[in-house]
Amino acid sequence: MKIDYKKELETASKGMIMIHDPRLLIKLIVRMIVRKLHIKHAAMILYEPKKDIYVLNISRGEIGMKVPPGFTRFSHESPLIRIFSQREFRPLTLDRNAIVSDDINRLVWRESIIHNGNGKAVKELLYRVDEQMQMLNTAACVPAYYRHKLMAILLLGEKHDGTKFEQPELDFFAALASDAAMAIRNAQLFEGLKREAERNRQLFLQTIEVLGSTIEAKDAYTHGHTGRVTEYSVAIARQMAATPAVGGAGGSARFEESFFESIYIAALLHDIGKIAIPEVILNKQGKLTDEEYAVMKQHTVRGSEMVGPLRLPRECLEGIKYHHEHFDGKGYPEGLKGEDIPWAAAIIAVADAFDAMTSDRPYRKGLSKEAAMAEIKRCTGTQFNPAVVDALVELYEAGKI
Amino acid sequence: MKIDYKKELETASKGMIMIHDPRLLIKLIVRMIVRKLHIKHAAMILYEPKKDIYVLNISRGEIGMKVPPGFTRFSHESPLIRIFSQREFRPLTLDRNAIVSDDINRLVWRESIIHNGNGKAVKELLYRVDEQMQMLNTAACVPAYYRHKLMAILLLGEKHDGTKFEQPELDFFAALASDAAMAIRNAQLFEGLKREAERNRQLFLQTIEVLGSTIEAKDAYTHGHTGRVTEYSVAIARQMAATPAVGGAGGSARFEESFFESIYIAALLHDIGKIAIPEVILNKQGKLTDEEYAVMKQHTVRGSEMVGPLRLPRECLEGIKYHHEHFDGKGYPEGLKGEDIPWAAAIIAVADAFDAMTSDRPYRKGLSKEAAMAEIKRCTGTQFNPAVVDALVELYEAGKI
Repeated sequence: MKIDYKKELETASKGMIMIHDPRLLIKLIVRMIVRKLHIKHAAMILYEPKKDIYVLNISRGEIGMKVPPGFTRFSHESPLIRIFSQREFRPLTLDRNAIVSDDINRLVWRESIIHNGNGKAVKELLYRVDEQMQMLNTAACVPAYYRHKLMAILLLGEKHDGTKFEQPELDFFAALASDAAMAIRNAQLFEGLKREAERNRQLFLQTIEVLGSTIEAKDAYTHGHTGRVTEYSVAIARQMAATPAVGGAGGSARFEESFFESIYIAALLHDIGKIAIPEVILNKQGKLTDEEYAVMKQHTVRGSEMVGPLRLPRECLEGIKYHHEHFDGKGYPEGLKGEDIPWAAAIIAVADAFDAMTSDRPYRKGLSKEAAMAEIKRCTGTQFNPAVVDALVELYEAGKI
Repeated sequence: MKIDYKKELETASKGMIMIHDPRLLIKLIVRMIVRKLHIKHAAMILYEPKKDIYVLNISRGEIGMKVPPGFTRFSHESPLIRIFSQREFRPLTLDRNAIVSDDINRLVWRESIIHNGNGKAVKELLYRVDEQMQMLNTAACVPAYYRHKLMAILLLGEKHDGTKFEQPELDFFAALASDAAMAIRNAQLFEGLKREAERNRQLFLQTIEVLGSTIEAKDAYTHGHTGRVTEYSVAIARQMAATPAVGGAGGSARFEESFFESIYIAALLHDIGKIAIPEVILNKQGKLTDEEYAVMKQHTVRGSEMVGPLRLPRECLEGIKYHHEHFDGKGYPEGLKGEDIPWAAAIIAVADAFDAMTSDRPYRKGLSKEAAMAEIKRCTGTQFNPAVVDALVELYEAGKI
């Protein structure tokens, strides 16, 4: 069967650039070679810039390639790497764009003719390359360069029809390997950048967590409170989203995916403003005076002000500022009512109350979950948004809280 | 002069993938077309996914292209965009892979023959495309698709030799435009990811700033202290790095670039552990008792523990934990001595002392900078690392502090 190499190359190269997962890309390339081009198997040795090493990436085909143990990594000193990367050996591979196992004896013979003593190192290297190729069950090795740097070596098994590799085929593989190496390098860079973005995102979220936990260093009675409120808040929000028609007086809630991260952040930071409240008020045992209570109430607004510089999503700020509003309008700081209270705040309010009731304090034991649920239900429609309470009830009854 | 289009295409496509700056890439492509392929000028209209609009990106050439005002953006309704992107008009451009201005009359004539009434809209569109092409001084427009979506239109001025575009040329430009569109899309994605990584990094650093400033909500006497200490610390570190041989008893310091971000973070967080110190001790006017002082000292270790979950670079943690160590070993928490005190900590110690001395407190006015410098010099070699003090002196004498 005749293969139109030019067309295959164009088809193969198109779109490679848009695949940004290096492993998937290598898999596709090797699979394409094996299937379309009637090679028994193929594999790719790829340069990994981070580790400054060459790695055997994947091997596919009917017969497969038995990779000897310890043969997946190649240093710069490995014969196969040296023959393609070291300038002095380039003449050996230039004429065919490859090393073909059938050629090795001819190359050795040619070296014997050309050189006298100097050729010994070259002959030695050729024998060792031959050895490596046999171990890897490889009939031809095709290098790929980018800016004169060896980026990859394509390892090709024998052809199904048993014929030898012709020069046009090797030229095709060289062009393909070159395109592939660049696409793979591109994908590696992409992956690296993606990882960096993700790492920075995690750093941000972890710093938010640390920020949220600072209040626990201050407020002796709230050990673990922030973490639990966060857990409950996210669970309630997910539950509300999972229930198709969140009904009751609270109306229905439709949350964007970003809402779940916002409520996570808001819940972690909901009490951050307490940092600014004097300890004598914060840690007072027994009832606060009206004056003290007025100061204590400031933590909601102070909290949203403290995180102002972060320019967090609106929902985060609302969650922090309004988590003490009551459904009947009798809460603080603004006396918002019903659905005017943002969802993040309404959810944190319930999660906060539930954890406060069920936690032990030095001067009292926490309520049982059952008793706390009863108390929260009692306050539905006055203190709490019924839709949020419904979600908490569902979570409780499903044993998820 | 004969141009080997196949070779030009291969040369052009190679390496496009590795250029990740979309503007640079477009510039290179357009310049290559103009110079090598003997076109008077060229430009590219590119799809911008974020804005869902097509934008004229660059125009190069000897004559240049006079872009009429308001002609840099093209909506989906623009004639040039419609003729290439709407399925019903595809037959118009399929046979030549392009719209060539010389063809327009022929296309209009063909439409008159084929259709009766229905062709009116097509003819109208063709006239409007012709109008746009004339305004853009364009002889041929070549579209580029990726997955059937119009990604770009290559706008070509006339050829230098005055001849018309031949089909092989247009096919070449179509292949080039397609490769270019994919490379540009790749670069755009890259840029987007880079921006995201940078945005997340900024979010992280801003959160660190907020975290660092929480202590100021608590400690009434330290308004702005954290920010100033951070500013001084980074300036001292930069000064030390700029001085080739930082001498004196402190030896010499060689900082990696990452050190400057580490000291920035460490300085912002150096007093974070004070959050955990009772206010009665933190805000006490007058001398602390030995017992109170022992509690106060814990802020260094507590601070490094609080930020533990962030897995910050070692230098950050060292800066927080050891910023009260003294050069003579009489500091806390561990009584480290001389060069055993990490640089970040030694630098923050000086910056911290300088700001504490020069700031007003409710019960005393701050020292003048001159007096503070004298005091710091006096404590060189006992409290402070001489190399750090040298850098502060240089900054002070240069009027930078």
